[in-house]
Amino acid sequence: MCYRCHMVERADMRIEQLADGFELWVGDVAIVRHRAAEPAFFVGSGRPLVEMYRGNFAIEDRVDERLPLRHAEIAGNLVRLAVAAGLAPLLELRVEPGGLALNAAGPALNRFWLRVLADAGERLWGGGEQMSYFDMAGRRFPLWTSEPGVGRDKSTQLTWQADVTGKSGGDYWNTNYPQPTYVSSRRYALHVETDAYAAFDFRDPDFHEIEAWAVPARIEAWAAPSFVGLVEQLSARFGRQPRLPDWAIGGAIVGLKDGERSFDRLEGFVAAGAEVSGLWCEDWVGLRVTSFGKRLFWDWKANEARYPGLRGRIAALAARGIRFLGYVNPYLAADGVQFVEAAERGYLALRQDSDDIYLVDFGEFDCGVVDFTNPDAAKWFAERIIGQEMLDFGLSGWMADFGEYLPVDVRLSNGVDGMLMHNPWPTIWAKVNADAVASRGRTGDALFFMRAGWTGVQAHCPLLWAGDQSVDFSRHDGIGTVIRGALSSGLLGNAYHHSDIGGYTSLFGNVRTAELIMRWSEMAAFTPVMRSHEGNRPDDNLQIDGDPQVLAHFARMTRIHAALAPYVAGLCDEAVATGLPLQRPLFLHFEEDAACYPVETAYLYGPDLLVAPVIEPGAERWQVYLPAGADWIHLWSHEAHSGGQVLDVESPIGSPPVFWRAGSVHEALFAGLASI
Amino acid sequence: MCYRCHMVERADMRIEQLADGFELWVGDVAIVRHRAAEPAFFVGSGRPLVEMYRGNFAIEDRVDERLPLRHAEIAGNLVRLAVAAGLAPLLELRVEPGGLALNAAGPALNRFWLRVLADAGERLWGGGEQMSYFDMAGRRFPLWTSEPGVGRDKSTQLTWQADVTGKSGGDYWNTNYPQPTYVSSRRYALHVETDAYAAFDFRDPDFHEIEAWAVPARIEAWAAPSFVGLVEQLSARFGRQPRLPDWAIGGAIVGLKDGERSFDRLEGFVAAGAEVSGLWCEDWVGLRVTSFGKRLFWDWKANEARYPGLRGRIAALAARGIRFLGYVNPYLAADGVQFVEAAERGYLALRQDSDDIYLVDFGEFDCGVVDFTNPDAAKWFAERIIGQEMLDFGLSGWMADFGEYLPVDVRLSNGVDGMLMHNPWPTIWAKVNADAVASRGRTGDALFFMRAGWTGVQAHCPLLWAGDQSVDFSRHDGIGTVIRGALSSGLLGNAYHHSDIGGYTSLFGNVRTAELIMRWSEMAAFTPVMRSHEGNRPDDNLQIDGDPQVLAHFARMTRIHAALAPYVAGLCDEAVATGLPLQRPLFLHFEEDAACYPVETAYLYGPDLLVAPVIEPGAERWQVYLPAGADWIHLWSHEAHSGGQVLDVESPIGSPPVFWRAGSVHEALFAGLASI
Repeated sequence: MCYRCHMVERADMRIEQLADGFELWVGDVAIVRHRAAEPAFFVGSGRPLVEMYRGNFAIEDRVDERLPLRHAEIAGNLVRLAVAAGLAPLLELRVEPGGLALNAAGPALNRFWLRVLADAGERLWGGGEQMSYFDMAGRRFPLWTSEPGVGRDKSTQLTWQADVTGKSGGDYWNTNYPQPTYVSSRRYALHVETDAYAAFDFRDPDFHEIEAWAVPARIEAWAAPSFVGLVEQLSARFGRQPRLPDWAIGGAIVGLKDGERSFDRLEGFVAAGAEVSGLWCEDWVGLRVTSFGKRLFWDWKANEARYPGLRGRIAALAARGIRFLGYVNPYLAADGVQFVEAAERGYLALRQDSDDIYLVDFGEFDCGVVDFTNPDAAKWFAERIIGQEMLDFGLSGWMADFGEYLPVDVRLSNGVDGMLMHNPWPTIWAKVNADAVASRGRTGDALFFMRAGWTGVQAHCPLLWAGDQSVDFSRHDGIGTVIRGALSSGLLGNAYHHSDIGGYTSLFGNVRTAELIMRWSEMAAFTPVMRSHEGNRPDDNLQIDGDPQVLAHFARMTRIHAALAPYVAGLCDEAVATGLPLQRPLFLHFEEDAACYPVETAYLYGPDLLVAPVIEPGAERWQVYLPAGADWIHLWSHEAHSGGQVLDVESPIGSPPVFWRAGSVHEALFAGLASI
Repeated sequence: MCYRCHMVERADMRIEQLADGFELWVGDVAIVRHRAAEPAFFVGSGRPLVEMYRGNFAIEDRVDERLPLRHAEIAGNLVRLAVAAGLAPLLELRVEPGGLALNAAGPALNRFWLRVLADAGERLWGGGEQMSYFDMAGRRFPLWTSEPGVGRDKSTQLTWQADVTGKSGGDYWNTNYPQPTYVSSRRYALHVETDAYAAFDFRDPDFHEIEAWAVPARIEAWAAPSFVGLVEQLSARFGRQPRLPDWAIGGAIVGLKDGERSFDRLEGFVAAGAEVSGLWCEDWVGLRVTSFGKRLFWDWKANEARYPGLRGRIAALAARGIRFLGYVNPYLAADGVQFVEAAERGYLALRQDSDDIYLVDFGEFDCGVVDFTNPDAAKWFAERIIGQEMLDFGLSGWMADFGEYLPVDVRLSNGVDGMLMHNPWPTIWAKVNADAVASRGRTGDALFFMRAGWTGVQAHCPLLWAGDQSVDFSRHDGIGTVIRGALSSGLLGNAYHHSDIGGYTSLFGNVRTAELIMRWSEMAAFTPVMRSHEGNRPDDNLQIDGDPQVLAHFARMTRIHAALAPYVAGLCDEAVATGLPLQRPLFLHFEEDAACYPVETAYLYGPDLLVAPVIEPGAERWQVYLPAGADWIHLWSHEAHSGGQVLDVESPIGSPPVFWRAGSVHEALFAGLASI
């Protein structure tokens, strides 16, 4: 089964022979130099130590051997690499249209390292969806899908508490969606085609070291004269999302999980003047209360007790142009009926040490893992659960949660080691959802959103969501991380990104402030999809409709979001055509302006809007860099400013720092936003 | 210069050839099996990343290559190892009387790994002075002298606070005194003769992996029919301490650092009935106040302002049989006069990037490092500072502090890389002290004590002290760690061990309780040297003489300590003759009793006393394992108990769990202790 079905157009790669080795070039960029004295290719073997606790992994490698392949024999497009002359080659490289195909001498070689040429001052972006650092230079990034961590900063008490109580503090590199692909400021991109545990080590001034716990099938690379060109190629390679439906960009999706009271509360949003495009009730399946907060009952069908007459309710909303969205994930609670159904059919993954079903601890309840490597099981989940229980029931979308928890010691139908199936699981999960949507002819209309990903998730998942931020302004787990997530994933072909307004994780007394919700609402208005979330502990935290001022502010931002829809619709068309993400780093359109490159928390929203969300508490003013080569009009005051300067702009709540590019064809639309 | 001058008697090692490799045996124990398919020897190269902050190191390795040396050519006592047949040998092994001598093909090979055969249930002790685990099985132990850490347990808030504020939390393996030597329950011992960063990895069930960041000069091994025999051999190998002077075992050394008020306070101890053998004033050099607490002024001479007329005071004490002890360490404060003197003579280590003196940050003040690799500098320190300013002034002993802070990027007179001089620095520092003492003919009388160590410190340092515990009962940094430190270091030839009564480090509101001081006093009474310490923040913490009940309890314990002197003197004689430590793991004398092996917090004090200190707060009773094969008499009640059982014994403060072996020739002495 190939779950990455997208056609790819790959850059040319070529070998240049040297006296004592060879170079690999893509376009006019030398990316690898391999010489006997300074080898770039290494293979070896190792044994991983893996501990999983509720989606958090402690992984350590014990490397048994690491062999520099100093001896190269080159014949046309083929290179054979050995430890020394006279010894059997351990690795064969073949330049193909799709990149560099690799073949190892045997399966015992389960470690691979490649050193890529590095430049002083080089910047490196991508790695999937990276929340802490958009530019990865100077750091090492393990690439393994997992919980992202709570706090993600070992210097904070919150992170320490999460580590001690649940091994869940995380670190800067933890992400739901890693991908072994990067874009270099040298105007090339590189992708490692592997499903294994991998790492990018960008700490050495002389080389980038790529590591994978299997010899990759291919090293792919692209070069282009512009970053726009590179991003287009990456999108073509990894898959392009269907156009975001107009309903999703035309108002806010209000997240409530209050049982049938959610419908009454929604009316409060409408009455406050909010433009509502959808009601999202993740608790449509019923609740389970744990020490983490209110969790959902993972048996995927409407819960009549919590939502009596839901089908009729959905129809009534639909008549008013409001969609209803739900929630699903790839696990089945052991105390649910679908678990029994799947178990009877043999669709659940098994233990290695017995024929028992593998149960995963999700925090005070256990679940089975539907074995998507069994095509029948995948079809069953798509048809029986998503098709019948969700789409046929009337859902227009859902959070397709998780995907990161595949245990490495599970026994799967396809016989592949869990170490090699763990990373691609989110992509497989995305395809199950996409197949279900397609089976009802709803592609481009029904909208699911995911936090987890891996190579190829782009071809199946129509919308990313930034995962579970803490409900704060913290550097590594707060509001600002969403921007970095949008920018990094956007470069790799994920055109659409959004987040939980107000953040999600409230633990150890960390709770939402009104200011946080309002700043987050302001930011979300300038992203493709504006969606709120009550968080993990709704009762302990301020809700949007719990404070009239917050609600009024939110409602105004939804109207601004809706008013932007004509502009955003054009960006969606562009995304379909070119793969350009809606949220873009400044340098994407201002390559010549060196000052744009370090900017990580402002973005271009399409070519004509510059958005610099306020991501610190207590700020009344904000520093915004305006790219050189254009003039910029402040959205609220309509004051013009020339580019190439840092502007200190008044930014009280309600007036986030947003500018439009003077001369935009959308000038009239932008100018009207200030009066909303 | 050889700073490890002790004569060694080494076990025989021999090679046994196999069809596809060889085995190494010591006595009747196979320790290494090397086969082409399962190689035991690996070499390679790597680049360390080292960050030092006030004696705390963050060290990461980047291994460039790790080559299994599968091909062995054996000729008599010589083995040549290569990656493959036909390739140049990279490592030569030669069995010599002293062990296995190793020669690498070149200096570029700066990584070495050796796999030693492991047994199920094998126990492994040693590794220098290990504070958290006496039995190292199941864990990895980096061997690098450093600060031991504050808290040393990532799950505690104290450790987290220390990490965040000073990178100083530490972990279970951090120690001032590591040593790449272990004793196996298979009744052999193994030593890696290297000064490089090293590690023992005891996690794999099939092998122990020894790592060193240089190819070691030798792998040494010993086998013996008994553990006593092994310990004697190790002591012979690493050096044997001079006999502890009678004055040091005949009463307590009272630590005060209150300037001249210390003398008045000492009278309070005497008046309370304490047997006082010495007054230890580390502030004899004057004070410097920092945020850590009161620190000392590191310019090593009597401070007339803080101790007016000290020479006369010392003489007056001496007339009463009370010694005076001071403090010194190998650094010179940049604002002191000795720094200038050393700098003018060129005795201070330099920076690599200039000819400037290398300054080390010790926490709000900088110091120069006396370059002991320059024999003139070492002699100068021994003569000019320790000889003239300390011994000639009247000091009978001192804390010879530190030794762990040698920066790895320092430039030394002998031209050796700091990575290779860092670990042996404590041993060199010990020798400077020992040479000074010998120069005055005071060996075996003047007593200095050290926390830092490395291979060979045994030959120079007459007394270990357990370093800086936190002032608490915590598992990894409290009172109980002292026992593990005594047992582990004792097996490697360090006969004498003691600790700061009450602990040392009081940070983040962690302060001493009366109970802690009293429990620590009880334990210290049954160690060779009983010495109190005011801690790093005397004013914030209870002092022994700050509570009449604590003082009375301490005084009684000093009398018990003094009363034990005849027994302890015999143990000291035994240590000189055989190298057996005074504090011994239970299994050392009860090899046949399997239940003795897991015991880590009780010890035999000599062959006839069993001491099981209470190391938890609030305990009124204590569980004590009594070794089988003897009867045991409770010290306080004189009740007899047969061995081979866990006894639940009443252990209120003042009656620590201590037993003597029925039939001991010292029975009368022991029986009398209860009435003190």
